[in-house]
Amino acid sequence: MDVISVIRTKRDRGRLSDEQIDWVIDAYTRGAVADEQMSALAMAVLLNGMDRAEIARWTAAMIASGERMDFSSLARPTADKHSTGGVGDKITLPLAPLVAACGAAVPQLSGRGLGHTGGTLDKLESIPGWRASLSTEEMLAVLDGVGAVVCAAGDGLAPADKKLYALRDVTGTVEAIPLIASSIMSKKIAEGTGSLVLDVKVGSGAFMKSLEDARELAATMVGLGTDHGVRTVALLTDMSVPLGLTAGNALEVRESVEVLAGGGPADVVELTLALAREMLDAAGLKDADPARALADGSAMDAWRRMIRAQGGDPDAALPVARDTHVVTAPASGVLTGLDAYAVGVAAWRLGAGRARKEDAVQAGAGVELHARPGDPVTAGQPLLTLHTDTPERFDYALEALEGGFTVSPAGTGFTPRPIVLDRIS
Amino acid sequence: MDVISVIRTKRDRGRLSDEQIDWVIDAYTRGAVADEQMSALAMAVLLNGMDRAEIARWTAAMIASGERMDFSSLARPTADKHSTGGVGDKITLPLAPLVAACGAAVPQLSGRGLGHTGGTLDKLESIPGWRASLSTEEMLAVLDGVGAVVCAAGDGLAPADKKLYALRDVTGTVEAIPLIASSIMSKKIAEGTGSLVLDVKVGSGAFMKSLEDARELAATMVGLGTDHGVRTVALLTDMSVPLGLTAGNALEVRESVEVLAGGGPADVVELTLALAREMLDAAGLKDADPARALADGSAMDAWRRMIRAQGGDPDAALPVARDTHVVTAPASGVLTGLDAYAVGVAAWRLGAGRARKEDAVQAGAGVELHARPGDPVTAGQPLLTLHTDTPERFDYALEALEGGFTVSPAGTGFTPRPIVLDRIS
Repeated sequence: MDVISVIRTKRDRGRLSDEQIDWVIDAYTRGAVADEQMSALAMAVLLNGMDRAEIARWTAAMIASGERMDFSSLARPTADKHSTGGVGDKITLPLAPLVAACGAAVPQLSGRGLGHTGGTLDKLESIPGWRASLSTEEMLAVLDGVGAVVCAAGDGLAPADKKLYALRDVTGTVEAIPLIASSIMSKKIAEGTGSLVLDVKVGSGAFMKSLEDARELAATMVGLGTDHGVRTVALLTDMSVPLGLTAGNALEVRESVEVLAGGGPADVVELTLALAREMLDAAGLKDADPARALADGSAMDAWRRMIRAQGGDPDAALPVARDTHVVTAPASGVLTGLDAYAVGVAAWRLGAGRARKEDAVQAGAGVELHARPGDPVTAGQPLLTLHTDTPERFDYALEALEGGFTVSPAGTGFTPRPIVLDRIS
Repeated sequence: MDVISVIRTKRDRGRLSDEQIDWVIDAYTRGAVADEQMSALAMAVLLNGMDRAEIARWTAAMIASGERMDFSSLARPTADKHSTGGVGDKITLPLAPLVAACGAAVPQLSGRGLGHTGGTLDKLESIPGWRASLSTEEMLAVLDGVGAVVCAAGDGLAPADKKLYALRDVTGTVEAIPLIASSIMSKKIAEGTGSLVLDVKVGSGAFMKSLEDARELAATMVGLGTDHGVRTVALLTDMSVPLGLTAGNALEVRESVEVLAGGGPADVVELTLALAREMLDAAGLKDADPARALADGSAMDAWRRMIRAQGGDPDAALPVARDTHVVTAPASGVLTGLDAYAVGVAAWRLGAGRARKEDAVQAGAGVELHARPGDPVTAGQPLLTLHTDTPERFDYALEALEGGFTVSPAGTGFTPRPIVLDRIS
């Protein structure tokens, strides 16, 4: 077997054989296939595609590159959730304790933000004392005791994916459905969850800009999960506008706590409940009532236990950025557009995200929204507040927001897009 | 400017701007763009193509990455030739002294073999004492004194191409017409020749398997040369069977000397004369008569001066391989097929070529043919002789030859393909 013949097969629109896939993933993990060879193959996969059997084998080879975890010792059924990433997507924060409060075990091996979408670990790290790194034993203890754990994925799960993901990030080969699907699912299957709910984002703030692409990605991932014995369902959800009223680390924690307290923005509550119901259903807990768990405080109790179990203080004051800048409505009328990508890039530039893996994030930085699409606005009223510790970045963030919101004359019709666009199982 | 946006432009079937091309070639040469990024871009170019203006700019950027040479001080007009590479393609050896004998200056900055096609420098190095490396001053002195020089290209010409060529070789991105054309032409234009004849090979033993692809490559290169003020013409020539009766280093030198002595295989003589006429015509020497220069010994005189000028002894015995193995005809009839690729791979495996740049080649190794397609053969008569210093490779070479020749019943019609298939100017 040699790597050039593997690259040529895909370059010339052929099918990769099982042997070719097993060999190339193993050789790349070992370093026998070089980065410049794998990136050429990734570009060929991006442009020429893989069929379902190829994607399944590619995923299996990435799982086989590392260790597998096992949750079978837990008393509760496991229910995992994965989002493909969006702007203001803090859903994991209220969702994990909520589903735990309803009786499932929720293992959330999460990542950090890169680019314009935030990372769950970055958000939780804005809580004083909270730490993301747990040993496998600690992770299982929190999961068993609290019912939910959000922590960094260990290096042992799907190391081939870890290496390939970092390569794709710098070679323009992220946006390939076979590679996105196999990357997500190899980690989730290696982790050993019994059921999985996928939140596939669609719109300007998401990787998948069109409903058609999102549907293909969702169907690919549901197929992979099902083939590996994981009960998998996907919701396609809107990411053309930001979720909720905040994008940024501590800002999103604050909003998540509001949701757990029974308040919070309607769209965040709606999506949290929709995903909770799917997770509980997939875990076989059909009688659970997540709306009641939000209302009666049991979800908030689980949140507090979950944060404390990882060293965090749920009562500590959250960090606040040193400087703020208010963007006002340029005219009176109706806010008819608020672009998720523009808001995400602005929050990123203010310091909520990182440009390179080595960068630190600012806990207090981000964008706070004072109006949602469909809201009436008056000229001069605050539309957005920008938060940062580095005020020299305001201009750079404002540049990202140019053309990112639209105020139309009063009386202009506006039909909000539903949050959940489709369901694939 | 950032490399991911350049990669994405081509990945998404866009046109690269002049600024993008200039930037990416310069940044790659400097090491600011990594190999894994350039290989992803090369694969995107291979699959999505470049238009004529993009190829022209890409070529110009590669020329600008290094120095340019100047032959304007020479009394004779310069005429260069480049072959895209084939099996048994020793044509440079008789051609350069022949054209020099007719009054032109022939600078042949040549390469070494990689893969199943041999390299001109490897062939000449089988002559005792001959050396490929000359300084620019030495090169000009030989060119001025003898009229022809065959030597290694210096590191200063198109360094971007040197780096990119080595990368393409290990990433399955060699077979892209825009990249092949810009690679060849950047070196030839930087070298500063006044006229150029391209020998574009077509068939199993060549990069271009189809006449259509070869025509596209030829037209692209002729356009690039013309745009840069180089009088350029291309012949499309057959490479479905090996050229002449030998493939290997010393074996091909021997055959070349036979041609210079007025003998040699008819196809080698025909192609040598056809290319010589084109070169002399492009150099403005329309009255020269290369057939006479072969017949009257003046081409042989130029050869001897050329070899001596670089330390070689034209009268020394050529190296001979230690072991030979004869392949005989399996049946009586007509030889109707003899595959160039199979013979090329066999010669390579016997030691005439190298698998990696660092490998040495065997001077005596190769394949000698005793019959050409169309010849009648008798069961048991020698068809091929394999030559090597490492007889343990015979089996490996014989494997390459399996199915590589066909003996059909006597009386089977056979129409030989002409050598020159088309001409593009």
